[in-house]
Amino acid sequence: MEVIDLGKALCVITGASRGFGYCLALHLSTLLKSGSILVLIARSEGKLRELQAEIRSSGVTEETLKIKNVAADLGKKEGVQEVVRVLTETETSSFNHMLLINNAASLGDISKFVVNLTDLEEVDQYFSFNFSSALCLTASLLKHFGKRSGLKRTVVNISSLCALKPFKSWSLYCSSKAARNMLFQVLAEEDPDIRVLNYAPGPLDTEMQVAARSQSGDPELRETYARLHESGQLISCSQSTSKLVHLLLKDQFKSGCHIDFYDV
Amino acid sequence: MEVIDLGKALCVITGASRGFGYCLALHLSTLLKSGSILVLIARSEGKLRELQAEIRSSGVTEETLKIKNVAADLGKKEGVQEVVRVLTETETSSFNHMLLINNAASLGDISKFVVNLTDLEEVDQYFSFNFSSALCLTASLLKHFGKRSGLKRTVVNISSLCALKPFKSWSLYCSSKAARNMLFQVLAEEDPDIRVLNYAPGPLDTEMQVAARSQSGDPELRETYARLHESGQLISCSQSTSKLVHLLLKDQFKSGCHIDFYDV
Repeated sequence: MEVIDLGKALCVITGASRGFGYCLALHLSTLLKSGSILVLIARSEGKLRELQAEIRSSGVTEETLKIKNVAADLGKKEGVQEVVRVLTETETSSFNHMLLINNAASLGDISKFVVNLTDLEEVDQYFSFNFSSALCLTASLLKHFGKRSGLKRTVVNISSLCALKPFKSWSLYCSSKAARNMLFQVLAEEDPDIRVLNYAPGPLDTEMQVAARSQSGDPELRETYARLHESGQLISCSQSTSKLVHLLLKDQFKSGCHIDFYDV
Repeated sequence: MEVIDLGKALCVITGASRGFGYCLALHLSTLLKSGSILVLIARSEGKLRELQAEIRSSGVTEETLKIKNVAADLGKKEGVQEVVRVLTETETSSFNHMLLINNAASLGDISKFVVNLTDLEEVDQYFSFNFSSALCLTASLLKHFGKRSGLKRTVVNISSLCALKPFKSWSLYCSSKAARNMLFQVLAEEDPDIRVLNYAPGPLDTEMQVAARSQSGDPELRETYARLHESGQLISCSQSTSKLVHLLLKDQFKSGCHIDFYDV
């Protein structure tokens, strides 16, 4: 039997205002059963409002899906606290699915090689946003949505090839993605009741890619990404979103595994 | 021809006051040529003095080897700054080897499963010590010791099996070790002139192992480590130190690779 929806879910997406997160929010909003709540998190309230309007204009009514926008900066302690506060205020008993998509991330200063990363605060801040906030958000939400019969809990880490392979001048991004992959592997080992997926969406045609091909310190990497762009080999967010959604609906991935766009 | 020393080196060891770092300092002190400087870094000044005394009592004279103790907490910004200040005050031109051993690390609170890591500051602090400080120290020292004909630069990351494999209730340690492994892989890619080694010393018979078998949240892991201890399968620091020293003297490892005690 083909599963065609994600249940009556609390669905949380970080970094929802742009790129992959935005596209994923649009897609997931059509797959949530009546009574679901979609929580959209990003810094920009304006962009979240645009996203919400686009979801509504696609025909998803307020009666079917409640949407909560949380404008917060996950790179700041107060931002993380605010998001945790909103999420842990949600009642949990009416849902049969808790779905968290840890999508928010930044490249950091990709003009810098390792030798230039002498500023402790820069590195600390980078990791607080790109690692710690995802960990604390995940932990807080899982604590709030404890194991319960009839409740599925799914945690997705938006990963990258960079979690597995070193790229010159991308040390912060690679390291944080490696750390996140490992973190979610540990989570999967710790609790077999939680469905954990590390999904690498492939080289997406987003603002992040513009930065990748223009700001990378490594000239070869700039060229590689420029070539991917010019030859039309970048992946659209909707293509990659479709693959992730397919994985989530099918729900047969090994918990904790890393699946790349090109693997599916 | 067998290489029998590490040259006239500036040799820096973090976490030198105990366990593997202590043992490594003792061993390396005998392999540095006249005019070398050994910089020992740890929080406890008393322990560093003991180590220095033990090195001297082994016959390494002040005329052969200068030893600098730096009592600083790499978990604090001021500590990292102090270490960087001392290191970047060193003149560089007289050395033909710069050898940095990033050994300092902590297990973190291994009683906690992922779901209990809701405290952002705890995670941030953990990563600042276990990742950021190693990065900034490495970057600062490599910047100070720029590429120069006749100068070898070696950076060792004391890694772990935990960098590659998830262990329940050790998410912080596993994630930070994965991040470090990736960081040093990127460094190796970025600069082929630098010799980079990720060395996993194996399960050592140290205080860290006492914590591992008594405090791990995962009961299976506690048992595994208890069994290793009881059956005498823990590795002594000097055994593992010997293997690392052998790798450094031979100097034929692929830069950026991960080598485990059991691989050699």
